[in-house]
Amino acid sequence: MQLKLQHFDIKIGQHKVMFNTADAKELGVNPGDRVRLRGHESISAIVDTTEDMVEQGTLGVFTEVYEHLEPGWDKPVEVFPALRSKSGAVIKKMMDKQHLTREDIYMVVNDVVEENLSDIELSAFMTASYIHGMSDDEIEWLTRAMIDTGDTIEFDTHPVMDKHSIGGVPGNKISLLVVPIVAANGLMIPKTSSRAITGAGGTADLMEVLSEVEFTSQEVKEISEKVGGALVWGGATNIAPADDKLIRAEYPLSIDPYCQMLASIMAKKGAIGAENLVIDIPTGPGTKVANVQEGQKFARDLINLGHRLGMNVECAITYGSSPIGRTVGPALEVREALKALESFEGPNSLIEKSAALAGILLEMGGAAPRDHGKELAMETLRNGKAFAKMKEIIEAQGGDPNVSPDDIPVGQYTANICASADGYVIEFDNKWIVEIARLAGAPNDKGAGVRIHKKLGEAVKKGDPILTVYAEKEFKLDTALVTAQRSNPIVVEGMLLRRVPGGTFGFGG
Amino acid sequence: MQLKLQHFDIKIGQHKVMFNTADAKELGVNPGDRVRLRGHESISAIVDTTEDMVEQGTLGVFTEVYEHLEPGWDKPVEVFPALRSKSGAVIKKMMDKQHLTREDIYMVVNDVVEENLSDIELSAFMTASYIHGMSDDEIEWLTRAMIDTGDTIEFDTHPVMDKHSIGGVPGNKISLLVVPIVAANGLMIPKTSSRAITGAGGTADLMEVLSEVEFTSQEVKEISEKVGGALVWGGATNIAPADDKLIRAEYPLSIDPYCQMLASIMAKKGAIGAENLVIDIPTGPGTKVANVQEGQKFARDLINLGHRLGMNVECAITYGSSPIGRTVGPALEVREALKALESFEGPNSLIEKSAALAGILLEMGGAAPRDHGKELAMETLRNGKAFAKMKEIIEAQGGDPNVSPDDIPVGQYTANICASADGYVIEFDNKWIVEIARLAGAPNDKGAGVRIHKKLGEAVKKGDPILTVYAEKEFKLDTALVTAQRSNPIVVEGMLLRRVPGGTFGFGG
Repeated sequence: MQLKLQHFDIKIGQHKVMFNTADAKELGVNPGDRVRLRGHESISAIVDTTEDMVEQGTLGVFTEVYEHLEPGWDKPVEVFPALRSKSGAVIKKMMDKQHLTREDIYMVVNDVVEENLSDIELSAFMTASYIHGMSDDEIEWLTRAMIDTGDTIEFDTHPVMDKHSIGGVPGNKISLLVVPIVAANGLMIPKTSSRAITGAGGTADLMEVLSEVEFTSQEVKEISEKVGGALVWGGATNIAPADDKLIRAEYPLSIDPYCQMLASIMAKKGAIGAENLVIDIPTGPGTKVANVQEGQKFARDLINLGHRLGMNVECAITYGSSPIGRTVGPALEVREALKALESFEGPNSLIEKSAALAGILLEMGGAAPRDHGKELAMETLRNGKAFAKMKEIIEAQGGDPNVSPDDIPVGQYTANICASADGYVIEFDNKWIVEIARLAGAPNDKGAGVRIHKKLGEAVKKGDPILTVYAEKEFKLDTALVTAQRSNPIVVEGMLLRRVPGGTFGFGG
Repeated sequence: MQLKLQHFDIKIGQHKVMFNTADAKELGVNPGDRVRLRGHESISAIVDTTEDMVEQGTLGVFTEVYEHLEPGWDKPVEVFPALRSKSGAVIKKMMDKQHLTREDIYMVVNDVVEENLSDIELSAFMTASYIHGMSDDEIEWLTRAMIDTGDTIEFDTHPVMDKHSIGGVPGNKISLLVVPIVAANGLMIPKTSSRAITGAGGTADLMEVLSEVEFTSQEVKEISEKVGGALVWGGATNIAPADDKLIRAEYPLSIDPYCQMLASIMAKKGAIGAENLVIDIPTGPGTKVANVQEGQKFARDLINLGHRLGMNVECAITYGSSPIGRTVGPALEVREALKALESFEGPNSLIEKSAALAGILLEMGGAAPRDHGKELAMETLRNGKAFAKMKEIIEAQGGDPNVSPDDIPVGQYTANICASADGYVIEFDNKWIVEIARLAGAPNDKGAGVRIHKKLGEAVKKGDPILTVYAEKEFKLDTALVTAQRSNPIVVEGMLLRRVPGGTFGFGG
């Protein structure tokens, strides 16, 4: 069928064309079917139909398809019904809990990266992954397919060290300490990180306060080879690009299928050729891992997958029920991290955790003897070598190496949330802390966030500030405060939980 | 946040708006989140983001959302982040195999009908339905929700009779006989039907050869009350509109979740107040029901669901491995059906099956004593009363009551597919018959289709025509023939399956 083209100047994340219903009937295709367009090259596209958006004889073409045509293409194209996507058949197999082959998985991942799956297919893939999971073989193939469909980096320096934290803990700024500690001891650690999607700041959002974070894979290599470490946003490289596309379905469904989570973590590490990897697995309410038992299973699966990929993996199951350090939000967190680097001052939870994780890497990389890694990490912080290395990294990434923690601007609009009674902080909801920081503007407003004065179990007096909320815009501060007051994320009570009246005990009545 | 509006003049089947990425960050929303727009009314919409399709400060608005604004609205709107859709939480529950409440199910169905679900959510709903299924309670609520979110018809005449065939058998034109037989005996049967999606012609596609088929619910009532029967396209009414929206996800995934299939059938019957319903369940390879055991389970579930809805249901498990009658494709099938009505001439499979199904309805409605329904149905065909009633229905629906089967035009381009050897038809693939009819142009080209000269088990001589393919367009005939030859859907062999050479019997070697 010959059809004129009408360009819809909209990217919709999939290769889609819009038929007039009459043309679709004539061609015998339905919404969700595939067609091939033969212009100067042959393009596959997903069919949608409309009664009135395009006239009969005309094909509406969204930007993803249009970009495959020669610039200024205005001739009609020949349109043919095409076979169903083979990925569709693979997704159906998954729904039916049949085993997939290596080829099956490569086909789907390839179509994900090429935006050849419709949202409906992508969602079915993620839903079936969530419900049925995958075998060890399938997860390995998924990981390898995610590596192979993106950029990879081959470093000249070895071993390549890396670190990953499973999300879910507010204020988990430890990469800003771990990376310079490790690099200061002569081990190369080219760390790619994510931006926050539901959090108040990912490592990339934090580092962006200090320097550029968007680099190509080649630039990441150059920076790392030069100064021994990098702290960059993975999304700017083309490393494991499938991952970002899958989030398109995961995020709206509020799911993070276990097999996809394993593959996503390990693909990013595999693509940069990581040889020694430490993974921080925070556990507890509000994190992605409910308890230590689940954390151990997760650790075993990560270590096993690493083994299949030729990667040496160690995991640290960490306490995740409370924020790390006392700040949440990009600028506040960076201040806290820099202060710890500069003067070895700061919350125990931040320094202890960072040194413990860095210590494991120092041992894995041979920079410290077994059981002496943490000691070396603490020493590297104390003697200023980690801070000096951090300055080198900041400079290599185009930032100001002489930045001082107190120079970093934070939101000018602040308010305290205070204890309503004497007592102890007995409940502390991580998710609400993040929500308040987000409502105040984090992570987009770098200066927005929350400073935590009192953590779980600490004693407070009536009127003591428990949190300070920071915002760059007054209306965002107001919104955050309204939510903070309504939701009451922190409960203060005296240690006496309930007073039982003495004298007579009555039943009923 | 105040944003100017830019109208994208495209319907995309969901309430969606497009943010510039910077605005989305500033507002703290991600693709798949919900926002509320406050123009002259408050509208909920699904967020998508773009780097360059809309400028910062501008919101791209697709037609579904735009239509909620006053005509010509050109003022900015106030945009707020909104809570996640509650349906999203219900879909998550389904994925986790938790039981749903009545309210849960009504919420999702309502959002399906209102196009408040994204394709990603819709697909997850259908995928989870397919994998986990639903309890009897959930299926009942799903059915009731599908009824309550559309039009219903209350007839003055009772009982209301109805008939449904599960799909999958080519040439299943029996409604064209069943409806007039039943109506000719004084029972009202207002039959709504579907158009073919993957088939060569649904009852609505067939009836359209003879008359209009697109009527409102009110018109369906008037026609049925007047002449006792109707044969209309359900899609033109607003009866159980959720069903058509769900197909948007079912079709591309090639799934038809069992719970959704039950609900979809029964909702359409419940919405017109059917009191006595017969359901034809074709079984065998190529149909939706693999064998008689599955057919019996299906029958029990339909009868049980009917009972819950106050509907009297009987099921007929029928032979589905071979086409009904000898024609596939709208005009050819209508010719065959009219000929059977006019002169009681035609294939046994068509007349027998139609009379059997009609007979059950005649007994259920009290027009025939138990075990005498089929006899009465045959008599109604033989004495011309069914044909007379069919003419009344055609006329009531705006068609020509004096139509003669031979007047109905069929495709002018024809070709025979002939036996390559003497023998018997030992394989006959229903799906390929349908595929050939579709490639020849059915159901859109009414005159396209296939006439079957030899069915499974029949004897043929070399060169005998097995099929005749009809097309309205020569190139479609060619396409169909190429496929027919390549795929060889019909295998002819002599009865001697293998000749064992006599004399000596050797083992091995």
